[in-house]
Amino acid sequence: MTEALVPMFTPQPIGFVRSPFKDAAAVPKGLGAKHEEEGVLNIFPEFDLGLADIEGYSHLIVLWAFDRSEGFDLMVTPPSDSRPHGVFSTRSPRRPNPIGLTVVELLRRENSSLHVRGVDMLDGTPILDIKPYLSSIPSEILRRGWLAEAESRKG
Amino acid sequence: MTEALVPMFTPQPIGFVRSPFKDAAAVPKGLGAKHEEEGVLNIFPEFDLGLADIEGYSHLIVLWAFDRSEGFDLMVTPPSDSRPHGVFSTRSPRRPNPIGLTVVELLRRENSSLHVRGVDMLDGTPILDIKPYLSSIPSEILRRGWLAEAESRKG
Repeated sequence: MTEALVPMFTPQPIGFVRSPFKDAAAVPKGLGAKHEEEGVLNIFPEFDLGLADIEGYSHLIVLWAFDRSEGFDLMVTPPSDSRPHGVFSTRSPRRPNPIGLTVVELLRRENSSLHVRGVDMLDGTPILDIKPYLSSIPSEILRRGWLAEAESRKG
Repeated sequence: MTEALVPMFTPQPIGFVRSPFKDAAAVPKGLGAKHEEEGVLNIFPEFDLGLADIEGYSHLIVLWAFDRSEGFDLMVTPPSDSRPHGVFSTRSPRRPNPIGLTVVELLRRENSSLHVRGVDMLDGTPILDIKPYLSSIPSEILRRGWLAEAESRKG
């Protein structure tokens, strides 16, 4: 199968993020970075019905577009390490498909605005999708690869 | 800001899923569905370098395209309930941006093939992105909305 034969969708925003971060330098990054800033997911009113029952979830998965990133690198040196790693082993914005993922805590809903904690997106970021966070991998079985190694080197 | 002003990317597959599921009816769904089937993420060799260091992770987040789904519904009645819910409160394939998300356990890597457990994608599904699964929301603080309610009604 070749890429040309794959029917793909055309991404469209379902809304925009309101966040305190106006540029990438302002977003906490690297080891020990905390994402506790509050922000708002402003969903377009035409998608309002799709938010029905979302208040029941404590956490949401937000998929969004790295709209201020162009191109990609296969190897990247992330803020959390001095060594390069494969892009798919990192959260780098410069990815073949520039889709970002953030897990946020839902604080409250006001019509089609979701007030959330834990944003790491830039202000004005286009939102692609919202999904419920349904279950977790128990921390005792999770292995965190080079990131755990980088932490222990710096520790 | 209007949608027309948002620069968006053009999705391209980075590879394809090999899975035992040939059609949607074969995928375990609904309450108590287990996703323990093994499959392979066959990444195109041109992206091979981007997989560097991925073996260090026990779990990966796979983003993929619902390539056999057309259009979307704002309200859906999922297999796990008899009541309709907003699409963003569900994992329905019929979403404004038809992007699927699956957390898989990485069993082993063979060149640009990742052998994984926990696939729920159809065979031949285009893969959009792979990200490390870095941390979990502790289960004691996770609220699972209508899904928990549906479980208790059926329990």
